[in-house]
Amino acid sequence: MLILGIDPGTAIVGYGLVKASSGRLQALDYGCIRTPAGEETCQRLATIYTGLWELITRQQPATLAIEELFFNKNSKTALAVGQARGVILLAAAHAGLPVAEYTPLEVKQSVAGFGRAPKEQVERMVQALLALPARPRPDDVADALAVAICHASFAPWRQKEQEAAGR
Amino acid sequence: MLILGIDPGTAIVGYGLVKASSGRLQALDYGCIRTPAGEETCQRLATIYTGLWELITRQQPATLAIEELFFNKNSKTALAVGQARGVILLAAAHAGLPVAEYTPLEVKQSVAGFGRAPKEQVERMVQALLALPARPRPDDVADALAVAICHASFAPWRQKEQEAAGR
Repeated sequence: MLILGIDPGTAIVGYGLVKASSGRLQALDYGCIRTPAGEETCQRLATIYTGLWELITRQQPATLAIEELFFNKNSKTALAVGQARGVILLAAAHAGLPVAEYTPLEVKQSVAGFGRAPKEQVERMVQALLALPARPRPDDVADALAVAICHASFAPWRQKEQEAAGR
Repeated sequence: MLILGIDPGTAIVGYGLVKASSGRLQALDYGCIRTPAGEETCQRLATIYTGLWELITRQQPATLAIEELFFNKNSKTALAVGQARGVILLAAAHAGLPVAEYTPLEVKQSVAGFGRAPKEQVERMVQALLALPARPRPDDVADALAVAICHASFAPWRQKEQEAAGR
């Protein structure tokens, strides 16, 4: 099962492609799509869409995994991240790629075994689980790999639940 | 000058196509793109993108006008509207269509001549300015027409400013 984890943003979109087979996890590709700060928002969104579309068509993942987002304070940030998230979900829809969403708590729990683990510990666990030579940087890449790992651990359960519910 | 005004949302995207020539304003087309509540977000965003794309390629507007959004309280709404706004800006970028953004205050001022006019007054002014047979409904359509009217009144000034600045 090939999972594409995504961490959305306007300036930087982190991605992590994780292969899960018989309990083993492997990072096939990870990095980020960056957009220039001076560019107009429309162009930055087009860069994100095109970059993601190329990634999806080249790697053919089975699922796109992404965090559900919650903002307590800054609704300006929520709008900006929402715009980037919108084009990412659109690219998935255009590619016929199913999207799985997880709360930040679910991601942390599945990666670090503890829902309130600090960011650094999550990064170390991502590095350890995927046997990476170094801690994935920047944060956006680590977060993208983390949500992909989360889907790898949740997907079998979700599938069983759906089968049990006769779906 | 043909202007496409847009009021973004996930459930409903209002649009208004306004023709401005020698000071006269005319509504060529207006209405909304609706997405079913039960559908997945990805599919709803794809419906918005496709609907808008068809509108742009059929009508060939010169500019897409849209409100800058500010949210004081509800960042969950900001995220959802942001997602819809993202695919709208993407459709504009893919069509090579320039985007003009206006604050809610600019829109109200240009339509009702008073930045704090109540919603109903703005709707009546939109109806009067475009000589519509009835008040445009729902709100989203009136708001889309209002931002298009706003661009019709601001665009000549913006152009002169840019020429003066040697751009």
